Amino acid sequence: MANLGRHVLLELYDCDPEKLGDAGSVRHSLMGAAAMAGAHIVTELFHQFAPQGVSGVVVIQESHLAIHTWPEKGYAAVDVFTCGTEMDPSLCIAPILEAFGARRHMVVEIGRGAGLG
Amino acid sequence: MANLGRHVLLELYDCDPEKLGDAGSVRHSLMGAAAMAGAHIVTELFHQFAPQGVSGVVVIQESHLAIHTWPEKGYAAVDVFTCGTEMDPSLCIAPILEAFGARRHMVVEIGRGAGLG
Repeated sequence: MANLGRHVLLELYDCDPEKLGDAGSVRHSLMGAAAMAGAHIVTELFHQFAPQGVSGVVVIQESHLAIHTWPEKGYAAVDVFTCGTEMDPSLCIAPILEAFGARRHMVVEIGRGAGLG
Repeated sequence: MANLGRHVLLELYDCDPEKLGDAGSVRHSLMGAAAMAGAHIVTELFHQFAPQGVSGVVVIQESHLAIHTWPEKGYAAVDVFTCGTEMDPSLCIAPILEAFGARRHMVVEIGRGAGLG
């Protein structure tokens, strides 16, 4: 049986710090990636930390996307969690890499709800 | 070098469906667990799906907590993502298990930002 959910953990390294530093820009990039992957957006929130860093979450009908950025390290941690078969979370990866100018990345995908049998 | 972040993925099985079904109750449980683990809460949102299911996110200074519930399956997927050394995400586990009456669970912890060197 397929898992109930797919959870993609995406590590972005050597990004453009300017693209990680502004909540409006981060919001635009993550919402764009969600839309490109066919997500149905329910609601979202993005928070600008001082002196730097952004945290954002997009709740979608298929579960969520989340991002935390460390501009001073050129690093962002992104999660794309989907349930159902209509949305493929891996389709978010390329637009996210491009949006933040990541020169290195790592992806791990974890099945959620595997113990439901 | 320690990882930048700790990401605990918590699978809750055989939960009390009533405790998974109401956004207000789910919010109370997740916010309580965050507080017990010493999180500094920035903002939160919880969404009630129809006919059933709740998605919720708590943005904390240390990163985030997220939950998605499937009352009809007695299942919830929870994430606790923290950065820094002040908050231990594993301290959220016991209060969350108790709040939802989970009779089975699985925990995976993944280091985030490991490629920063």
